Amino acid sequence: MSGIQRRQFIGISGGVVAGAALGVVTSRVGSSMASDGVLGAMATSRGLSGDEARGALATTVPPGKYDPYYMFASSGHLGAVQVIGVPSMRLLKVIPVFSRDSYSGYGFGADLSDEILKAGSNPTKSSSLGWGDSHHPALSETDGEYDGRWIYINDRANGRIAMVDLTDFKTKQIIDIPNLGSSHGMCVTPNSEYAHISSITPRPTTDNGYAPLESYADLYRGYSTWFHIDPKTGRLVPEKSFQVELPPYNQDLADAGKLASNGFGFINSFNTELAVGGTAAKPVAPEVGATKNNFDYLQIIDWKKAEKVVAAGKFVERNGMRVITLSVAASEGVLHLVPEPRNPHGVDVSPDGHYILIAGKLDPHVTVFSIEKIKDAIAKGTYQGKDRYGVPIIAMDVVLAAQVEVGAGPLHTQFDGKGNAYTSLFIDSAVAKWTLGPKSGVTDKPFTFIEKIPVHYNIGHLAIPGGDTVKPTGKYLVALNKWSLDQVQKLGPTHPVNLELIDLDSSPLSTLSSMPLGNSEPHYAQIINTDKLKPLKVYTPGTDPQTMALSEHAIVAGKERVERNGSVVDVYATLMRSHFTPGTLKVTVGDTVRIHLTNIETTENATHTFTIPAYNIQATLDPGEVVNVEFTADRVGSFAFYCAQFCSALHMEMYGWLLVAPKGA
Amino acid sequence: MSGIQRRQFIGISGGVVAGAALGVVTSRVGSSMASDGVLGAMATSRGLSGDEARGALATTVPPGKYDPYYMFASSGHLGAVQVIGVPSMRLLKVIPVFSRDSYSGYGFGADLSDEILKAGSNPTKSSSLGWGDSHHPALSETDGEYDGRWIYINDRANGRIAMVDLTDFKTKQIIDIPNLGSSHGMCVTPNSEYAHISSITPRPTTDNGYAPLESYADLYRGYSTWFHIDPKTGRLVPEKSFQVELPPYNQDLADAGKLASNGFGFINSFNTELAVGGTAAKPVAPEVGATKNNFDYLQIIDWKKAEKVVAAGKFVERNGMRVITLSVAASEGVLHLVPEPRNPHGVDVSPDGHYILIAGKLDPHVTVFSIEKIKDAIAKGTYQGKDRYGVPIIAMDVVLAAQVEVGAGPLHTQFDGKGNAYTSLFIDSAVAKWTLGPKSGVTDKPFTFIEKIPVHYNIGHLAIPGGDTVKPTGKYLVALNKWSLDQVQKLGPTHPVNLELIDLDSSPLSTLSSMPLGNSEPHYAQIINTDKLKPLKVYTPGTDPQTMALSEHAIVAGKERVERNGSVVDVYATLMRSHFTPGTLKVTVGDTVRIHLTNIETTENATHTFTIPAYNIQATLDPGEVVNVEFTADRVGSFAFYCAQFCSALHMEMYGWLLVAPKGA
Repeated sequence: MSGIQRRQFIGISGGVVAGAALGVVTSRVGSSMASDGVLGAMATSRGLSGDEARGALATTVPPGKYDPYYMFASSGHLGAVQVIGVPSMRLLKVIPVFSRDSYSGYGFGADLSDEILKAGSNPTKSSSLGWGDSHHPALSETDGEYDGRWIYINDRANGRIAMVDLTDFKTKQIIDIPNLGSSHGMCVTPNSEYAHISSITPRPTTDNGYAPLESYADLYRGYSTWFHIDPKTGRLVPEKSFQVELPPYNQDLADAGKLASNGFGFINSFNTELAVGGTAAKPVAPEVGATKNNFDYLQIIDWKKAEKVVAAGKFVERNGMRVITLSVAASEGVLHLVPEPRNPHGVDVSPDGHYILIAGKLDPHVTVFSIEKIKDAIAKGTYQGKDRYGVPIIAMDVVLAAQVEVGAGPLHTQFDGKGNAYTSLFIDSAVAKWTLGPKSGVTDKPFTFIEKIPVHYNIGHLAIPGGDTVKPTGKYLVALNKWSLDQVQKLGPTHPVNLELIDLDSSPLSTLSSMPLGNSEPHYAQIINTDKLKPLKVYTPGTDPQTMALSEHAIVAGKERVERNGSVVDVYATLMRSHFTPGTLKVTVGDTVRIHLTNIETTENATHTFTIPAYNIQATLDPGEVVNVEFTADRVGSFAFYCAQFCSALHMEMYGWLLVAPKGA
Repeated sequence: MSGIQRRQFIGISGGVVAGAALGVVTSRVGSSMASDGVLGAMATSRGLSGDEARGALATTVPPGKYDPYYMFASSGHLGAVQVIGVPSMRLLKVIPVFSRDSYSGYGFGADLSDEILKAGSNPTKSSSLGWGDSHHPALSETDGEYDGRWIYINDRANGRIAMVDLTDFKTKQIIDIPNLGSSHGMCVTPNSEYAHISSITPRPTTDNGYAPLESYADLYRGYSTWFHIDPKTGRLVPEKSFQVELPPYNQDLADAGKLASNGFGFINSFNTELAVGGTAAKPVAPEVGATKNNFDYLQIIDWKKAEKVVAAGKFVERNGMRVITLSVAASEGVLHLVPEPRNPHGVDVSPDGHYILIAGKLDPHVTVFSIEKIKDAIAKGTYQGKDRYGVPIIAMDVVLAAQVEVGAGPLHTQFDGKGNAYTSLFIDSAVAKWTLGPKSGVTDKPFTFIEKIPVHYNIGHLAIPGGDTVKPTGKYLVALNKWSLDQVQKLGPTHPVNLELIDLDSSPLSTLSSMPLGNSEPHYAQIINTDKLKPLKVYTPGTDPQTMALSEHAIVAGKERVERNGSVVDVYATLMRSHFTPGTLKVTVGDTVRIHLTNIETTENATHTFTIPAYNIQATLDPGEVVNVEFTADRVGSFAFYCAQFCSALHMEMYGWLLVAPKGA
């Protein structure tokens, strides 16, 4: 890191940041390598400091060896989930979810992905949404630990949720969530009872989804959605799900309670001012209007109580979703509020569930609430009042466990399983390490700031293996940094984000490596041990990945055929290195062509694609997989279809001819 | 690499590979680290061999330091160009070209990218092609060296070519090439006179692009396209370009002559059998039909002579492109053929231009032709005959300089600038090092196999810094491997490709690192020193990136406004941390909304996006950039638009309201 100047804080227009304890940020460069022989000489010849050489040796995963962890990261407006190996930080896979991806053959004519994307597009929006903004991946859990079965991800842009199957690493379901126009707070409950997803900007509850901003406070509402997860298939089941209507306070991050706080959900908010941009005569940007108050509200939802309220029929049906209205939520004790300092961002529950941590964003503290005190206040009805919607407010000091001064711009917190918490500091461009309290077993200096390590630069989320579970395993911390300016050579005006790997076993904390990443913004990530996953290698021959059962259109070699019924042509075709059977398809312009493809390979990695360029079709078939492609042959011509995979030495020869003849030819 | 079993060859169905000299492949693991202190102990604690520790130290690029090389790689059917740092092998950037990319805001409502994609879609194909298959990047050159100004890339799927500006790393132009239905062979001439692109599968020359396969030999044709490059802007200029009609031999890789061979272009072929899949009664896959002959043809084009032929008016105009017909090409000496062994793949010209290297694919040799002998044979008219199209054939032995036995499945060759050639061996899964001949200054053991290094596994292309220029600089070789099976932990049935970095300064050759890459198949790559590029950091305020001049729609702060003319609403808006101005847009359903956006930031990295989720719009604006978005407000509702970049501590607050009111509301 020598020679790199610490960049100045990026100013926040319209907001002044309270002074923060910056702590001591030391340079960790330059330990002597005098005692090192061949390797030391080599490090010296490349100008590496001792710590840089150490970082290289600590993170390298040599050819043929495996990373011990998968990091499942979102990708921001790339709309995908991606898999990064830790500690090598190599990009192992991109799983397309909300955005089409021609490399995976996702959304380019293959029936399975096209149907998933279509089913996930509310027809009142664009006919078929072509992208999304994936934010918060949530691995399925058993007893509060990641179980490696499924992963859920939200679309911040459109208020959608998706499920990815970690057997074959493919998206299996997208749902456009009723009543949500956007989404942010996403988490999974400790036994994957629910995937929780809440709105960010509220939406009018009117039939047509429109209401003037003058009626914002009365007609706009947020929603906390509890999506039931089928315990066998991992699918989201709307009819077993419900929503809790929320005030039009912009909902921010969410976390599910665990152990001591199991049964609760926690959602931050950041616009209790109900700012809407002022008036035409006097416009006020949300960043100004929404930062006026010194406190916003933590929204506490008792989802076990909500289940009972729904079971008792105390809900309304709104656009196909069972909704506990705001007034019922307030009166039935489903929803409570606690003031929390200024425009908070992250809310994180400690591994034991005792503490709920609020990162203040415009406040230099992490505010720590006690679940025991919250439960006690609710039981006793100790409220300081109600908000304009009648929701009871618990006074902050009644439930406060501590406020820990960590620095400027705290956003999110993760845990190492040893009683320490790590909070990202966006404005400081640093990670603060501090201790949890007595309920987490910390008796020596509870709630105490320990140290701070600089990152390059402004950090959003951070991730530790098992960091959202009841048993974080520590060892590494990944800092997901933005604004990384001088951390990579110039690449034009758009800069890559920069992920840094921090060694949690070192004291003081030290940085091991950095990964500028240019394909996406991995917004948040969860890290899991590789041995928790049981991915499959090839499909059972003839598999439809959507059902994981035999496809009705699967065929075996020798059964390839063409069936014509009027103007409908059904082709049953196979793919095998290095040819398509049949290799020539003759149709007449205007025909409906349905091609049922079976990859009859049984060899691992023998993936093929079926590509008809001029028809914009690109389907990928893994070994054993069945995919169907349907199109109208609306253009006369001789089209060479081909396999776009580098599938053998004769991959260039793996093509065939689609002949679309003129009528009467 | 210890503990990893060498995988068996992947069999080629329908083809038998001639035996090959496998050479001595040694394991390079296990040098002692006894003399190493702290670093050695650390390597040992992680179970690293000496070579693995050495690889880590040789390739690490510590936080804040820069890679000395950019690798510009294609991405296969991801349809992009991507930038990878060497030697760190980190993915620094993905530049979308043929496929839409929501992360870059490319093809989701922003006028510039939408227009580029539309202009690059022949309307006789799908209305607007949404993806491509990028194969062979070619950096612009001056005096035979990469000059870092522009990069060109072909779409193998649709016969298209694109230009990327290396000032701002953005795609500026896509052209759907007349008469091409697909493309493969791509290269740039030594002073960027032309970007050359040829077909892979031929296409009927009929008006409607259709012809039955029975008339394949008579009506189907390939094309070699010489696209003029404007020396000031780098833009491709169709009206100054021309094509040479070729026989329907599937054209494969192409390379441009340089120095001794400047003025020539070389294109392989692999289906001189004219196989078309047999008959309906007796189907024969191209992989069988096209591999019958022991020889195919190298197609030699004299492009300087072709220029004169065009200047003399000896061309026909075909779909807007000047075409030298096959008969004129043959009679005017523009086109010659030389037999070359069995289904060759790569053709590569040595740095000095003296040698043309053919990798046999189904032959264990690299066949080396001499440009002096080729010129001599042409001058003397020493032909062995003509093909069925009247193209003169030069006998192979007349122009042969050498045949070097390298191993099974040779595909492509690169150079280190020291007289050595490196050939990828797909079936052997290895790279062979061998010497060039006397004309390249090699007097000691010319054309001699030296050694072979295993790669994991089947390698396609390979890349060395400056490898396609007159001055390769060696040091590193990147092996672009497929079928990497056991080189990464399981990730479901689709496996990532695996790039390996090889140290050219070591003897014997050694592997430094591997990078499994899961977002794409970087099909081919060129590597350039970082100091050759001059990327810009921010745009001059108000820049239209398409012209790099002031946009007519640019505004400055304070000039934001809304203009209504009937049902057309023009919004002139600015973006600045952390707000849009105006922040509220009110329109009536049915209105045409044109939003002219200026990012008025002047700070490096202050990129914003303009996102209207429900309208599928996602535009990205770098500092100083102007982008226009147009849509019909066809759905009533209150929509929160926002910035999808993590652009400040208040990035959550950077949103505004698009209100589409019902008529009369």
